[in-house]
Amino acid sequence: METKGLVIVHTGEGKGKTTAALGMAVRAWGNGMRVLILQFIKGSWKYGELAAIKALSSVRPCIEIRQGGLGFSQRGAGAEDEHRSAVHALLQTAMDELCENTWDMIILDEFNYAYSFGFISLDDLEMLISKRLERTHLIFTGRNAPQELIDRADLVTEMRLVKHPFQKGIKAQKGIEF
Amino acid sequence: METKGLVIVHTGEGKGKTTAALGMAVRAWGNGMRVLILQFIKGSWKYGELAAIKALSSVRPCIEIRQGGLGFSQRGAGAEDEHRSAVHALLQTAMDELCENTWDMIILDEFNYAYSFGFISLDDLEMLISKRLERTHLIFTGRNAPQELIDRADLVTEMRLVKHPFQKGIKAQKGIEF
Repeated sequence: METKGLVIVHTGEGKGKTTAALGMAVRAWGNGMRVLILQFIKGSWKYGELAAIKALSSVRPCIEIRQGGLGFSQRGAGAEDEHRSAVHALLQTAMDELCENTWDMIILDEFNYAYSFGFISLDDLEMLISKRLERTHLIFTGRNAPQELIDRADLVTEMRLVKHPFQKGIKAQKGIEF
Repeated sequence: METKGLVIVHTGEGKGKTTAALGMAVRAWGNGMRVLILQFIKGSWKYGELAAIKALSSVRPCIEIRQGGLGFSQRGAGAEDEHRSAVHALLQTAMDELCENTWDMIILDEFNYAYSFGFISLDDLEMLISKRLERTHLIFTGRNAPQELIDRADLVTEMRLVKHPFQKGIKAQKGIEF
């Protein structure tokens, strides 16, 4: 069995992009793999996910999460520069980690969001994909995955919204929405 | 914040249906919720997932998985009856567990598959949904979610295949496909 790291994309307007990435992280951890999660938007992984990852990590410390971006809601004067530099710092972390044989899977959560705002260039994207070790899986999540990423990916899934509880007037529920 | 158990469906031809359910299970566990996973097809949750759930359970024993169905590949004389009775035994477990205040989330993995084979009736489906405590989330996974289920659901996501590695001739990869 050859090991070939895949470039995987979860995109679309529906739910489950980050949730399926969390599922992949957990499954990979269970398979003895080493998983790094990089958050391009602060707060996209909340208490429940963080507590579960901490618990897994206490059993075998091969899963780690690092926040790098700002929150979705940070706007106003200077916010764009702050967003850009937060994204670039995390991108640098990704590049550094990719070159080492430290991780079998790296999840770039909400990468697509940061890319669609112009904070990440096509050169950066190509470098991420080409610099990684052959065996490292890269998972990109977020709406509006750029065509350049889809072209370079091995596995692309679109999460399509068929029906949402807000449409029925039901409020956000703990453990589901957050 | 009212607690209203949602009926959630992951369907479609793409990947991520069971993986996102695993992610939801893990997030819910991290939020202090109690999660039961019922497998309508044996073997749909493999070593990696099982190891991770076991690890979480060793930290706080509020997550459990029970196999009830047969494997996808079991065919031949008598196989249909065996499938049907395996599904019915698991359905009975689901009904029993639903009435107790033991679980905050119950995942019925590959339920849609068992339903589409005619092993589960609409009456069974309606009973599952109506018998549960108001606060219990029910998650149904599998291709070909029946319209009767979609009609009764609060949140439905279709995982759509945009691109698959097999199309590029890449073999199944540990931690991704299994």
